[in-house]
Amino acid sequence: MSITVVGSVAYDSIETPAGRRERCLGGAATYFSLAASFFTNVRVIAVVGDDFGPDQESVFKARNIDTRGIEHVPGKSFFWEGSYLENLNEAKTRNTELNVFASFEPKIPSTYGDSEFLFLANIDPILQRRVRESMPAVKLVAGDTMNYWIKDHRPALLEVLKGLDVLLINDTETRMLAANNNLVQAARAVMALGPRFLVVKHGEYGATLFHSSGKGRIGDRTFRAPALPLEQVIDPTGAGDSFAGGFFGYLASEPDLTPGAFRRAMFYGSVMGSFACERFGTERLEQLSRPEIDARFHVFRELTHLD
Amino acid sequence: MSITVVGSVAYDSIETPAGRRERCLGGAATYFSLAASFFTNVRVIAVVGDDFGPDQESVFKARNIDTRGIEHVPGKSFFWEGSYLENLNEAKTRNTELNVFASFEPKIPSTYGDSEFLFLANIDPILQRRVRESMPAVKLVAGDTMNYWIKDHRPALLEVLKGLDVLLINDTETRMLAANNNLVQAARAVMALGPRFLVVKHGEYGATLFHSSGKGRIGDRTFRAPALPLEQVIDPTGAGDSFAGGFFGYLASEPDLTPGAFRRAMFYGSVMGSFACERFGTERLEQLSRPEIDARFHVFRELTHLD
Repeated sequence: MSITVVGSVAYDSIETPAGRRERCLGGAATYFSLAASFFTNVRVIAVVGDDFGPDQESVFKARNIDTRGIEHVPGKSFFWEGSYLENLNEAKTRNTELNVFASFEPKIPSTYGDSEFLFLANIDPILQRRVRESMPAVKLVAGDTMNYWIKDHRPALLEVLKGLDVLLINDTETRMLAANNNLVQAARAVMALGPRFLVVKHGEYGATLFHSSGKGRIGDRTFRAPALPLEQVIDPTGAGDSFAGGFFGYLASEPDLTPGAFRRAMFYGSVMGSFACERFGTERLEQLSRPEIDARFHVFRELTHLD
Repeated sequence: MSITVVGSVAYDSIETPAGRRERCLGGAATYFSLAASFFTNVRVIAVVGDDFGPDQESVFKARNIDTRGIEHVPGKSFFWEGSYLENLNEAKTRNTELNVFASFEPKIPSTYGDSEFLFLANIDPILQRRVRESMPAVKLVAGDTMNYWIKDHRPALLEVLKGLDVLLINDTETRMLAANNNLVQAARAVMALGPRFLVVKHGEYGATLFHSSGKGRIGDRTFRAPALPLEQVIDPTGAGDSFAGGFFGYLASEPDLTPGAFRRAMFYGSVMGSFACERFGTERLEQLSRPEIDARFHVFRELTHLD
């Protein structure tokens, strides 16, 4: 199976208690693609400027990621600068320059047309919807969003949610989207808006999978995956997108989307999120191997299993 | 096996989004005893005033809890008033009246002398230490504390920690005690102060068991138990003490303190914490049965196990 992902490919300048890095390769689609590429074929749709050259391209190529959907236009790539000095769990944005991203018009290469899985990373819901509608035949669609779209672009976001099978967001976003502080009630309200599955990411505490079994009722198979208590978090940038890549990549690699497959996908999501934090930017994901991933999967099982 | 617990038996006035209750029976030793009583024999050491009568006594008696160590003195019992209106995860204290608790001098009935397990609930570390030293023969000692003692009574608390096998505290207390924001590093620093086991409670996200295997090194068997996503939290008062009661009560019921026993104890702790939140005060714990507890244990396993 293959996944098409649409989202940002960007440069990030990052400061954490462990140090500072200038203009790392980043962006949601980058982290997602790298993480998912260990499980399945990945195809990217994004836009970059002329500061994106062969060195950056090779990060994708080394993981066999299809970059024919990365459009090159004159100008500079999306740029984000953030600091985790005050709080490792939440970035403080210092600067955002949309640059070429401001006029992003996703173009889907014809060779991507047979992708069975589609991931709509956190971008303008109008673009998410356009891509979704251009790929009506996909088997499973997942997406992400953020507080900005929930607050100020709600009608467009609600249209996107109708077309999603899986939504992956964090606690705060879930509560904000549902206007309800109880997570279980909020999860039910969010699933009533469209997605059958809701993955709520809890940062250092792991993530919970909710599943609606008709009429917004919460299924019996609510599932919680732990996060790994990490001795040192070097840089949490991209951990959520790496979680999504591990989760969705694993699902795309499974012959059947059974409840067991979703459970293992939650663990693989947590595994990829934990790796992402171990070095700055995409460094750790670039160096990773599938045996390391599977070894950590077993660490997670040990961490939380009774026997 | 039997557990002796020393701590507060009190009255609580509680306000939560679900309503308000005046002068419920409460206190750390009360919640701990009720939760632990489903697993083993429990003996309480506390002090109460003349507002504690047969009705309150019968709550303990109904669970076969030994109350010979509850001293009755003239005056009023410890009283606490708190609100969870702003934040269900953290009480805002409106009023605390120590009353007879202000001059509490724990007296250990001679019939308690053969207890193999000792729990030092959250009270003045000077009293915790005195009780600990009066029961030198116990097999396992666990304890709790809070920000107030960590900040303002550190030397006395450090003496207590030297005599503990297990410390149960929350994330914030762990970081404060170690003066380190990384949970894994903080856990190591706390265990270097005495306890071989550290249970860090994460509220709605469950709890993590750390185990030092000599020289403050963290053992391989770090273990994370989930919490149950609850549809409605009626009253979180006593959830942490109920966790401690389920955890320690289960350990006391096991013939051997194996790693597996500690893992199951973490789950039973989470189970008892989840029940405590379902009604005001001790209402739910008073109505509970062991089959209900074991049924929920299996819900927790389902919630987090891959197969």
